[in-house]
Amino acid sequence: MKTIDPNRFRDIDPGQRVLMGPGPSDVSPRVLQAMSAPCIGHLDPYFLSAMDETQQLLRYLFQTDNRLTIPVSGTGSAGMETCFVNLVEPGDEVVVCVNGVFGTRMADIVGRIGGKLTRVDAPWGRTIDPEDVRKAVEGKKVKVLAVVHAETSTGVCQPLDDLAAIARDAGALFLVDTVTSLGGMEVDVDRIGIDAVYSGTQKCLSCPPGLSPISLGPAAVETLTNRKTPVVSWYLDMGMVADYWGGNRKYHHTAPINMVFALREALRIIAEEGLEARHDRHLLNHRALVAGVEAMGLEMVVAKSDRLPMLNTIRIPAGVNDAKVRGALLKDFGIEIGGGLGDFAGKAWRVGIMGHACRRRNVVLFLSAIQTILKAEGFAAGPDVLEAAAAIYDEA
Amino acid sequence: MKTIDPNRFRDIDPGQRVLMGPGPSDVSPRVLQAMSAPCIGHLDPYFLSAMDETQQLLRYLFQTDNRLTIPVSGTGSAGMETCFVNLVEPGDEVVVCVNGVFGTRMADIVGRIGGKLTRVDAPWGRTIDPEDVRKAVEGKKVKVLAVVHAETSTGVCQPLDDLAAIARDAGALFLVDTVTSLGGMEVDVDRIGIDAVYSGTQKCLSCPPGLSPISLGPAAVETLTNRKTPVVSWYLDMGMVADYWGGNRKYHHTAPINMVFALREALRIIAEEGLEARHDRHLLNHRALVAGVEAMGLEMVVAKSDRLPMLNTIRIPAGVNDAKVRGALLKDFGIEIGGGLGDFAGKAWRVGIMGHACRRRNVVLFLSAIQTILKAEGFAAGPDVLEAAAAIYDEA
Repeated sequence: MKTIDPNRFRDIDPGQRVLMGPGPSDVSPRVLQAMSAPCIGHLDPYFLSAMDETQQLLRYLFQTDNRLTIPVSGTGSAGMETCFVNLVEPGDEVVVCVNGVFGTRMADIVGRIGGKLTRVDAPWGRTIDPEDVRKAVEGKKVKVLAVVHAETSTGVCQPLDDLAAIARDAGALFLVDTVTSLGGMEVDVDRIGIDAVYSGTQKCLSCPPGLSPISLGPAAVETLTNRKTPVVSWYLDMGMVADYWGGNRKYHHTAPINMVFALREALRIIAEEGLEARHDRHLLNHRALVAGVEAMGLEMVVAKSDRLPMLNTIRIPAGVNDAKVRGALLKDFGIEIGGGLGDFAGKAWRVGIMGHACRRRNVVLFLSAIQTILKAEGFAAGPDVLEAAAAIYDEA
Repeated sequence: MKTIDPNRFRDIDPGQRVLMGPGPSDVSPRVLQAMSAPCIGHLDPYFLSAMDETQQLLRYLFQTDNRLTIPVSGTGSAGMETCFVNLVEPGDEVVVCVNGVFGTRMADIVGRIGGKLTRVDAPWGRTIDPEDVRKAVEGKKVKVLAVVHAETSTGVCQPLDDLAAIARDAGALFLVDTVTSLGGMEVDVDRIGIDAVYSGTQKCLSCPPGLSPISLGPAAVETLTNRKTPVVSWYLDMGMVADYWGGNRKYHHTAPINMVFALREALRIIAEEGLEARHDRHLLNHRALVAGVEAMGLEMVVAKSDRLPMLNTIRIPAGVNDAKVRGALLKDFGIEIGGGLGDFAGKAWRVGIMGHACRRRNVVLFLSAIQTILKAEGFAAGPDVLEAAAAIYDEA
């Protein structure tokens, strides 16, 4: 029999970071407390009512009346996969917009499930040009047009209205990744005309990672209902999952009970603040962060018009050691920021101000800390960094 | 703008059940506390070391040296899907043993991913006959032989050694579902010769649902490495997931941080108790439960030789209202037990004594409560129910 010494393992004690990377973001103590409520059964009447309330709160968050609005039992990438495997059958035409890691991931998934992929590319750090999409869609019977709203790998915000119109005109379903945008900026599913949307809990919802809120509109549900082939994933088959979350309560898989408690509390906090106030808060802190960053002599990667409020990419100055700076932020200040992914590895920092972490205290802390570290690295910062940030708050 | 009244939603307060159904089981306060530690990043050095420790503890639990031993970011069914989508390519011969809901689910998944399915059936409540499996395998180039160790829908324990030998002789991978057995009875992966195994956190590990521990042995890893087609699921692609959990730490998807903290604590509790003591505890409480149940004049569904210790199916006596009894257990005593699934719906109760919930206090509570309820339903119980259970404990 193989043995193990249990005394080798100490109590969980992760300390307390300030999470300003690309997610997870800081979680409110209220959410952690809700998550640690006693576990109960997945068919317990109390849990069923908590599920209903979670769905009501998610519909508010997505600004939708879609009945099929639920948290998928996996992280944001599971939500992405859920949308594609349910809506795409082998041979279906799918147009995917790619300008970063998450568009690339969408294209990867389409290939795996046998969709006929057309990519519309834009350089990393730039938005997708709707004209390119229009051309890609022309003359094809497109089943799904997919795009990332908030590209977490680059910090680019993709305007959705033009693409929604193109999808509508082409008779295609409009599928949108809102993993990073939801809860931090407007994601008005019904007004925009989004047919399928997914997100993650660990960004602007400030809930631990583990669930992926999704919403499918009437056209998506009809597509799902009229499939000719079974959904390739049993676990993510929305026909069956909806039978549990909907009225029948038919057992499919055991829901992640405590994670649902956590999500419900995170959504309740959002409802208390109100979406508009929450979006304003993200924008204000973003403006202050950028003002400070630019006063420091650093450069934002993304053009002003295309920036996400909650995820800020900063060009790493020449001669500055990426890993050393991030290491010092974590070690000396307890601040996590993200490095670059893919094309941006070693070239950009990703600074998140998401949900519970999106506040003046953290903006000022980050600016102060990075200024100190960069100075030690020989990078001469401007003298008026904190004043520039303060001016933005004073205006508001 | 759609609005919602946040005051409609109250604080999470599920009360405190005694979870004696088919899972989730009662969660130790230690696990809930670990789960509510502050969230940190998925590449934070502290989290990386927590991942390593979780893997070490999982290897002990599975009694394996398999390097690829990790928790999949989904519930037990995601673990099932992970094993099949990674090991089976379209056209591969797969033999699945079916004697309940979970074998049926395996067969369903094989069909979805294009495997060439051969079912070996046994009646619900009975074990699979190895001779039937031998015949099914004969003359085929079988890629995977799959079986459920502990059929949660029936309470049947499937002996594994004969089936492992058949798989080995046939050159097939031996894939085993240990969702309900792991942590409550012997699952000695390396000794038995299991190539791929998955479980869930919410049964005998007494951790909330949300993760699925899996382990893939060298032959399974080789199969995965030599695939001709991509894994149909991006989310569950073990090649990429292993790159994050293994040495490279390459970002795949954001791990469910706090759920991993919870699992690590649940595994630490298991290591402290020791597997042998834990298995003995499950067996003892099972024997006492059965003694009480039979003294009451109730009948176990499964023959004595084939019973699982942690999941006990009891035949519902003629004339007794299933839903009413379970409702009274929940309402008057706060005890959850499970109803029957599939063929057993309305015919059997499923009483779990799993992990943290597996203790004398709960056995006696359940026996007392059901005796009281059945008496009110007109079912005359024997007078010596509690004495029968006590006699088992006294012997031990």
